[in-house]
Amino acid sequence: MGDVDRIKNVANIIREDVEKGHQVAVVVSARSGVTNELIARATAINEQPDEREMDVLLAVGEQETIALTAMALHALGIEAISMTGAQAGIKTDPAHTRARIKSMNCEKIVTHLEKGSVVIVAGFQGVNDEGTTTTLGRGGSDLSAIALASGLNADLCQIYTDVDGVYTADPRIVPNASKIQEISYEEMLEMASLGTKVMQARSVEFANKYNVVFEVRSSFDTSIPGTIVKQEVSSMEDVVVRGVALDRNQAKIMVSNIPDKPGSAAQIFEALGSSNVVVDMIVQNIAEDGCTDFTFTVHRNDYATAYALLETVSKELGAKKVKGDDAIVKISLVGVGMRSHAGIANTMFDTLAKENINISMISTSEIKISVVVDEKYLELGVRSLHEAFGLDSDGHLKNL
Amino acid sequence: MGDVDRIKNVANIIREDVEKGHQVAVVVSARSGVTNELIARATAINEQPDEREMDVLLAVGEQETIALTAMALHALGIEAISMTGAQAGIKTDPAHTRARIKSMNCEKIVTHLEKGSVVIVAGFQGVNDEGTTTTLGRGGSDLSAIALASGLNADLCQIYTDVDGVYTADPRIVPNASKIQEISYEEMLEMASLGTKVMQARSVEFANKYNVVFEVRSSFDTSIPGTIVKQEVSSMEDVVVRGVALDRNQAKIMVSNIPDKPGSAAQIFEALGSSNVVVDMIVQNIAEDGCTDFTFTVHRNDYATAYALLETVSKELGAKKVKGDDAIVKISLVGVGMRSHAGIANTMFDTLAKENINISMISTSEIKISVVVDEKYLELGVRSLHEAFGLDSDGHLKNL
Repeated sequence: MGDVDRIKNVANIIREDVEKGHQVAVVVSARSGVTNELIARATAINEQPDEREMDVLLAVGEQETIALTAMALHALGIEAISMTGAQAGIKTDPAHTRARIKSMNCEKIVTHLEKGSVVIVAGFQGVNDEGTTTTLGRGGSDLSAIALASGLNADLCQIYTDVDGVYTADPRIVPNASKIQEISYEEMLEMASLGTKVMQARSVEFANKYNVVFEVRSSFDTSIPGTIVKQEVSSMEDVVVRGVALDRNQAKIMVSNIPDKPGSAAQIFEALGSSNVVVDMIVQNIAEDGCTDFTFTVHRNDYATAYALLETVSKELGAKKVKGDDAIVKISLVGVGMRSHAGIANTMFDTLAKENINISMISTSEIKISVVVDEKYLELGVRSLHEAFGLDSDGHLKNL
Repeated sequence: MGDVDRIKNVANIIREDVEKGHQVAVVVSARSGVTNELIARATAINEQPDEREMDVLLAVGEQETIALTAMALHALGIEAISMTGAQAGIKTDPAHTRARIKSMNCEKIVTHLEKGSVVIVAGFQGVNDEGTTTTLGRGGSDLSAIALASGLNADLCQIYTDVDGVYTADPRIVPNASKIQEISYEEMLEMASLGTKVMQARSVEFANKYNVVFEVRSSFDTSIPGTIVKQEVSSMEDVVVRGVALDRNQAKIMVSNIPDKPGSAAQIFEALGSSNVVVDMIVQNIAEDGCTDFTFTVHRNDYATAYALLETVSKELGAKKVKGDDAIVKISLVGVGMRSHAGIANTMFDTLAKENINISMISTSEIKISVVVDEKYLELGVRSLHEAFGLDSDGHLKNL
């Protein structure tokens, strides 16, 4: 859709809620592409733009949308007023380009809502104690919406996205994946950190902290309900596995035959940490000859850096060799039901074994199990697990 | 120049002043074309956009430029900080899209100037008592600059434009027009209202009221001095005529043979006023038969409206006919020297008569004389007057 049509579409969505008699506050983000255009212009002028000025610049995108959205509502005969983050009372810390929300003062918004006006708030932005504009970083508009819902004590917070909800698996890989009706914050967080990028983890964490129930739904088809994200309720444990998550951005590095002495691990992970390489899964094996092997995964973008670092470090440690593989994926099962159901790991390993999929790493937590497998088994692995745990839309439990 | 190059150019101009040891506060306007784009988007969404929201939208243009300009200065190693109108302390009345500046609180700017930082202020915008963004209307950025210079008690206020100063006549018509070194506020105001559109009259009025000396100069070639605009000093009267102004946007309407009774004039001008048609020059003749004729000029854009109105009104008044002519121009002489020099009008009329240019209307004030002539005499009229009053760059006084 064109820019103007998108804004008219947003106005129509709002109209439906207004006509139902609701008081409506809306958080909007920039027109698609605007933020990237602004960044391109900034870096053409200064390769390393000042973060304070970057925030002044980026806030422009949302400021444009609030005004246009208010105008679109007026055209439908609906009272509406726009507010910047500062006007909406979104106070943040001073950390430009990645500020954290410190407090919400919703008085002004409430005044206008009570007058019968729709309030349109610029997402992604706030203001620090000095009165300078700040931005909230990636996923900032979702965060603004959840903070606002919390501040207003709203009955419902709806997040309109380009997907119509959270699915039991990526529907592009598993065609009969089904939409999850309700998911707990904790599960949603795991899904996010495991590669299901519907929302940034920080927005979910914020909602969890302030107990804001929200719905992820489609901005294209407003007739279909989305996925409700909320506190865990006991009935959620009835479902053993909520979903199968997939992370395609992993790479694996193995350092083997390290003489087993204290501090080896520290030396490896300090080297990676000081180069800002984030390590995800870690496995250590003690071999019979008194040597040790470390295997760990990093983001694929960091693979080359990490590999080069490890070659240096391994020499210092007297390790025999460094091996790497960036053709791997991480497949995870997520579900609060795992807490009360035994045998999930077994079923998982059996299912993969039956398909001759070799597991090279395993990591578990209370509500998830992750395995690393060869990239070529990506689709087969996800589909077989999805079916085995009864997640297919026409599915029933097998193998349990 | 491209957008990015323009901003880099502005940064270079500022650098020159910083290197001279000056404290510099800069007012910038939107990138060229941005304001029109925003208006187009707004009217595509709502044919009559709300003025409050229009201000939120339009303020975006300058907010982008302040950030980019600060970044461009940083790239040159110069300390700089951006401020919106609100942050800069520009308080206005609540009249959206055409707000008037009520007060300036320059504390924040001064703090940063004293720290050695260049302060970049968004022009064209301010904030009302409710904390809502307002815009100042046409020429608003010049107004912001002059208000800021006043608030800061600046030594100098330079207005960078696409012309390099104020000329004795439009150089496209009079090739040997010369740049005016110094001009009084009053003369500048007359020039502006008579069609020389270097600056909006309101900015000059503001400068006059607060006695802000400013210079109109070129943003393309910063080596050449511009025109200084300031309070009248007695030496200014030595020059009889400061310049020849031309207004091409006039149209003339004559209502003749109106029975001469009280209230006729009121009826005519009330009809025009209620349709927002602004009348410029007015001439009334009482004919021998006890009837009266009115001739007046309006903006050419209003000609059709005014003509249609007058046809109706003239019937009500029992007038014989309405005639109109939109192929006319107004040529004016401006100069504070006219106060102390006699015979200017005579010289003007003689000069035009010698060229066989017929004058159809005349209007005078203390420091200007305007005549309406046929459009085809535009160039000849302006050039002959420019020469007659010794304004040619190699000129000397003739005919006096």
